[in-house]
Amino acid sequence: MSESEFDIIKTYFTHIGESPDWLDTGIGDDAAILHTHPQEQLLISIDTLNAGVHFADDTPPENIAYKALAVNISDIAAMGGQPTWFTLALSLPEVDHGWLKNFCSGLLEVATKYNLKLIGGDTTRGPLSITIQIAGVIPNGKALCRSGAKPGDDIYVTGTLGDAAAGLILQQQHLKKYNSQQQILIDSLRRPSPRVDVGRALRELATACIDVSDGLASDLGHILEASSTGENRLGAELNLTLIPLSESLQQSGLGLDMQNELALQGGDDYELCFTAPPSEQTAIETISQQADCRISKIGTTILEPGLFIIDKGQRKAIMKKGFDHFGAA
Amino acid sequence: MSESEFDIIKTYFTHIGESPDWLDTGIGDDAAILHTHPQEQLLISIDTLNAGVHFADDTPPENIAYKALAVNISDIAAMGGQPTWFTLALSLPEVDHGWLKNFCSGLLEVATKYNLKLIGGDTTRGPLSITIQIAGVIPNGKALCRSGAKPGDDIYVTGTLGDAAAGLILQQQHLKKYNSQQQILIDSLRRPSPRVDVGRALRELATACIDVSDGLASDLGHILEASSTGENRLGAELNLTLIPLSESLQQSGLGLDMQNELALQGGDDYELCFTAPPSEQTAIETISQQADCRISKIGTTILEPGLFIIDKGQRKAIMKKGFDHFGAA
Repeated sequence: MSESEFDIIKTYFTHIGESPDWLDTGIGDDAAILHTHPQEQLLISIDTLNAGVHFADDTPPENIAYKALAVNISDIAAMGGQPTWFTLALSLPEVDHGWLKNFCSGLLEVATKYNLKLIGGDTTRGPLSITIQIAGVIPNGKALCRSGAKPGDDIYVTGTLGDAAAGLILQQQHLKKYNSQQQILIDSLRRPSPRVDVGRALRELATACIDVSDGLASDLGHILEASSTGENRLGAELNLTLIPLSESLQQSGLGLDMQNELALQGGDDYELCFTAPPSEQTAIETISQQADCRISKIGTTILEPGLFIIDKGQRKAIMKKGFDHFGAA
Repeated sequence: MSESEFDIIKTYFTHIGESPDWLDTGIGDDAAILHTHPQEQLLISIDTLNAGVHFADDTPPENIAYKALAVNISDIAAMGGQPTWFTLALSLPEVDHGWLKNFCSGLLEVATKYNLKLIGGDTTRGPLSITIQIAGVIPNGKALCRSGAKPGDDIYVTGTLGDAAAGLILQQQHLKKYNSQQQILIDSLRRPSPRVDVGRALRELATACIDVSDGLASDLGHILEASSTGENRLGAELNLTLIPLSESLQQSGLGLDMQNELALQGGDDYELCFTAPPSEQTAIETISQQADCRISKIGTTILEPGLFIIDKGQRKAIMKKGFDHFGAA
């Protein structure tokens, strides 16, 4: 290990993303220097992925990078923001140039796709760990918070749910080969597609928004909790048949009950879950068409605490099981 | 381990730092929301400390937190900036409430001392690792970069050098008890004092500035490298007797040659090293008095590449040994 930290940063990280006009000094000094616009607020989020916890040790490095950046972008998308820059703290057990090259190609792919600039970083020796701090911008006062849902709002989700959780099950089976539907599920886990365009379009429409990282039940629960005020405890009633399942999940060989369980409780989908008054339904259908993104109305918020699901005419309370980083040990 | 990530953040991290007027939404949503001032630029830096690499496994958690935040503050100080907010990504092998309580007390101590607000975080399971992303502000165009040194500038350092490196040697001896001078050296290693006030005061005076994290020779080398242009390769001539050594280091029992070696090559001091034209000497002496911080003129920049030291009338070239995170394995 003869490479210095300085060389690694220079070789691999200075070129990630186009140099934007707001970046006055990028990588190479004690801090990056940038300016902001007075009509915009900054959105700031940080997320870590650790080997063996958030991804399997044998995950290809380009997929690790892809996911590490994508999950951060998803946080900005959930606020209705435009992701703009990120910093990277990378701990590596050793300097492996093949690994770094592939890691950077994944990072570059996402940064280019979402027009993001890497403005600073730190590489250190340690167990494999990737921390990304992301920033986005949003016009003043337009951010979508978790706290704005009102009783009687419709509840929507983008895309389909449960795919990443099914991909995780498949990945843990260590099959030698995946068919095309299985590969789609695996890709959902490894290369999530944050919904930046939909999030931006929802700025004027949604009352609350979150990204589905820990599972629909858990994340919708955060909206209900944050939107409850005083004695007005907010709950939700979902219609099971309206929860969107992908063709890949339906053809996965998993039973229908398991498919529904994964869609309700599985994490890592990085779809958006949001609430909006019924009057916005047509506008939301237009957003769905313009962004070429399925958006499903799955239920409504109610003035009764708890999460209920309508299944074959029966109303059942469901528990929030969502992924807990510490509980999962 | 029954605590959820959400509970940990709520219990330990929401109260770190006073709520400032620029923070519109803090911890608790997908991203923090803040606004900035059009007459200011943002300074952004990120640093990781890993157990067993950057600190000994038995380091008290309050000291780990103290150092993790202080080294990030030092990067902002080196740019002449005012530190304002930070995010924290904390990987923990398990939830240990005693550890978390002490970690937070160290974090709170530094955040309060430097008036910093924790605006977001992520806690995950994994080998103990602390990543802090810090932001500071600076009036437009006033940042101190590494790249502005001119031939004939004086070279200065704040405080004394080599103390943290001596503290590391002491710490590795695992003595049962330290005397008061030894304790000062250990504290220099564990609880560095970033020079925010001096950095701010230097905005109008210094031509280049860096914080001494990897060792004077290495970090001054970064200034010389960044300030060299075309065929004008910048070097430096230092006077060994002017390198400031603390009373604690001089009484440490280490030989004088070792003391000098630590002052030139030892890392982790987090003092500022900066250059300024000779005409600013009086102004710099005033800053030293006002900030109650020793500032020593140790040499000058020259139009000859390399780092030279004058020792008993002899001029010797010195190598940059500085700490290399990957080379140190």
